[in-house]
Amino acid sequence: MRESLDFIYKQQKELSVIGGIGALLGWDQMTYMPSAGAGDRSEQTALISKMSHEKVTSDEFWKHIQTLSNNIESLSEKDRIVVKRLKKDVEKSRKVPSDFVERSAKITTLAYQSWEKARAKNDFKVFAPDLEKVIALEKEYCGYINFPGPRYDCLLDDYEEGMTTQKLQREFTYLKKGIIEILDKIKASNAFEKQPETKFKLSEEKQKFLCNIVIEKMKLPKDSSRLDVSTHPFTTGMGDDDVRITTSYSRPSPLFSFFSTIHEAGHALYELGMPKGEYKDTVISDAPSLGLHESQSRFWENMIGRSKEFWEYFYPVFRKTAPIYFKNISFDKWYNIVNQVRPSFIRVEADELTYCLHVILRFEIETGLMDEKISVKELPQIWKQKMDEMLGVTPSNDLEGVLQDMHWSGGSIGYFPTYAIGTIYSAQIFRKISEDNKNLLSEIRNAEFKNILGWLRKNIHEHGCLMDADDIIKKACGEGLNSEVFVDYLKNKYYEIYQL
Amino acid sequence: MRESLDFIYKQQKELSVIGGIGALLGWDQMTYMPSAGAGDRSEQTALISKMSHEKVTSDEFWKHIQTLSNNIESLSEKDRIVVKRLKKDVEKSRKVPSDFVERSAKITTLAYQSWEKARAKNDFKVFAPDLEKVIALEKEYCGYINFPGPRYDCLLDDYEEGMTTQKLQREFTYLKKGIIEILDKIKASNAFEKQPETKFKLSEEKQKFLCNIVIEKMKLPKDSSRLDVSTHPFTTGMGDDDVRITTSYSRPSPLFSFFSTIHEAGHALYELGMPKGEYKDTVISDAPSLGLHESQSRFWENMIGRSKEFWEYFYPVFRKTAPIYFKNISFDKWYNIVNQVRPSFIRVEADELTYCLHVILRFEIETGLMDEKISVKELPQIWKQKMDEMLGVTPSNDLEGVLQDMHWSGGSIGYFPTYAIGTIYSAQIFRKISEDNKNLLSEIRNAEFKNILGWLRKNIHEHGCLMDADDIIKKACGEGLNSEVFVDYLKNKYYEIYQL
Repeated sequence: MRESLDFIYKQQKELSVIGGIGALLGWDQMTYMPSAGAGDRSEQTALISKMSHEKVTSDEFWKHIQTLSNNIESLSEKDRIVVKRLKKDVEKSRKVPSDFVERSAKITTLAYQSWEKARAKNDFKVFAPDLEKVIALEKEYCGYINFPGPRYDCLLDDYEEGMTTQKLQREFTYLKKGIIEILDKIKASNAFEKQPETKFKLSEEKQKFLCNIVIEKMKLPKDSSRLDVSTHPFTTGMGDDDVRITTSYSRPSPLFSFFSTIHEAGHALYELGMPKGEYKDTVISDAPSLGLHESQSRFWENMIGRSKEFWEYFYPVFRKTAPIYFKNISFDKWYNIVNQVRPSFIRVEADELTYCLHVILRFEIETGLMDEKISVKELPQIWKQKMDEMLGVTPSNDLEGVLQDMHWSGGSIGYFPTYAIGTIYSAQIFRKISEDNKNLLSEIRNAEFKNILGWLRKNIHEHGCLMDADDIIKKACGEGLNSEVFVDYLKNKYYEIYQL
Repeated sequence: MRESLDFIYKQQKELSVIGGIGALLGWDQMTYMPSAGAGDRSEQTALISKMSHEKVTSDEFWKHIQTLSNNIESLSEKDRIVVKRLKKDVEKSRKVPSDFVERSAKITTLAYQSWEKARAKNDFKVFAPDLEKVIALEKEYCGYINFPGPRYDCLLDDYEEGMTTQKLQREFTYLKKGIIEILDKIKASNAFEKQPETKFKLSEEKQKFLCNIVIEKMKLPKDSSRLDVSTHPFTTGMGDDDVRITTSYSRPSPLFSFFSTIHEAGHALYELGMPKGEYKDTVISDAPSLGLHESQSRFWENMIGRSKEFWEYFYPVFRKTAPIYFKNISFDKWYNIVNQVRPSFIRVEADELTYCLHVILRFEIETGLMDEKISVKELPQIWKQKMDEMLGVTPSNDLEGVLQDMHWSGGSIGYFPTYAIGTIYSAQIFRKISEDNKNLLSEIRNAEFKNILGWLRKNIHEHGCLMDADDIIKKACGEGLNSEVFVDYLKNKYYEIYQL
């Protein structure tokens, strides 16, 4: 038993070291790597991925995990937890043949290239045959895993363990109805017609200054994190004490860099808050789901960063940084600009209210693709029709529609819902913190986030993946995923803003 | 034979991929890594070093190399060259037991720590016991390699293949005499007494601006290189088309960042100029010695960058960038400042003339340590005495003397001479280019370096390690290492500057 335990802990440690190296390769590629470095970088990344895959699926590792599983009662509580988690993860990885992994890498690389070509030509037909292959891959994958229930449950499980299509259908139906109800009222309002322009220019230096203030207030530790620049913002960890975020300063409004920095800092604080102690360098020191990860970023971005109280502190800071622009922008006007609702085509540019409709649209299409109720060739049409139904806007072409992002080319079907799950969780977390801490609003007004971070650490971060995401939320907030809480929040907030 | 050839090329390719990953880990550690990332980074670096070492010394690799060596006549010319080079490298690596490699890593890590402590206390005695161990390691290493001749030849061979202690003694004796002769004349001159202050301040932004101009003029390609900031400047390659340099903008004079950038860009141009084609991803696509590598950096830094013609182009650029400082600095005065001779304690701050004396001092001490004619405890005294003899200055403490840099703590005995070898080579290269290109001076005046880089590519870079360094120089310049050429250059230059 001792030998097997030593082996599995050493293996987890090595996987974590290899994972950190892979993260650095990826981070550098997106931030500083000179363009001609791409060729060698892809080989470096491939080597590290192969090493990691070989370690996870090695027969020796599996043998030791099985030995321990067969004697699970003789283990300490900690070892039991680790072994159970490992068994589940490794068993799943071993179900997938390595020729599938290789084939999958090739097909998705080609699909990404044809997605790029399709975008250049604004022609979905260029992408369609490769997307067909990606969908076929996803179905083949479900065949290997052989999960009970619909295929989509199997895919969901990779990103949001424990979540089911049925449960999501229920929550998303309620959420969709709720958002559309609010949206229709807003669209019919006087305030909606007179909405001001939200774009304004601010130098990179000033944007950076604002971003640095907010991450300092959020207590993102300087000695174990960094803020850099990349085309698309992201968070990555190359060590327990080295978690980095990025933003972009070249978007039409400085609110993009500001909110994306808050969002990514939320992810980074979660990563830095993972259980160390006895679970350091084990599979337990990880998020149980992408949805829970997203709850942390969306919490800081929306619940905190788009609140009135938050801007009581930051409006003067912005005003001082861009005095000319703010000359004619009162606090109230600014708060409305920050929270302006404006149905649009692109998910990543969506406002807080309509954002989840973009996600639900993908969920409806993805489940249809997996159930074979929707075919690839119908996608452009179905996309347009759903956009019109939900948001009341119709993309004039596929660049604004089905070709808008690369996600499907990579085969990550089942991943989109996590954006909405995280958003719903974030509202539940906010409600619970408000109940637990009667000074919450005044703390936010002073950009004093110590207690908020403390709550998140204790109730979310420190659990790692000792429970699944929904159980962590149940334990923290008294109930699992509940979109009613989020719809209530949206109504309270937007009825006030649009004076409904 | 086919199987063995496939194996050795695949192995070299993988070693090159692993080497690139190691380089990125190192680069990031020195440039952007948050401080708390150090713990995980050391494990990542250790894993990559171990992988590399295991691959180099694997029995299977050795078996294939031997098979090919035993049938060398049946191979193509290219394969013969690769196999011979590999055999030599791998045979040497296999002579060293892996427990020695591990022990060595531990001892040098401790020695580095005690060097730091000794510096903090300004007390060589704190470092001495660990340095003793490092010296013992070096001797033990020589025992494994069992190289003919004195121990120092064995150590030299790791950095400067083909070079011998005897040959260096001859060249360094001549060089030392030559430099001291010039230095004594300078010290006795009127100009020396009235030397102006060389320090001046320039913002980081402006220093960066100047550095970027010079690397652009040097044709360091933007798509395959970068300039970043680190405490000590360095060059590192993480791919054939990804070679990065660093500098520091926080030294007393902006000439530090400017010259160190030129120096590192010289290294980077060499790395980027290594043979691709049939020798890509083989051991041939590498420098044959550190001395030859240094010849490239020193060539650009000194032969080009400290020449009068170079400053005819760059003096106006500097003047425009720092108009207030340059108000009272004429071209001639500036050229003298750039080339000011001022004997000092620290090698990395030395002027062009006295620089090699610092290196010769180490050479004399290192050979003494290896021959057991000098003991560790005598070092502070011998250092002071030699400084006084050669440079006419005596360090007031060990921080300015024997503790000034970390190199010995890492055990790299035999490495210092490569700085002087490269410097001598650079003068030989410059003389040959002057003979080959009658427009050379006018090209330098216009910062037009295309032909110079072309010459270096053709005569140095593209040989990779097809020959040893001295043979490359022989082929390019008509003779091997010859310090007379460098002493002539120094006399011509400094007799004019100091009007002797």
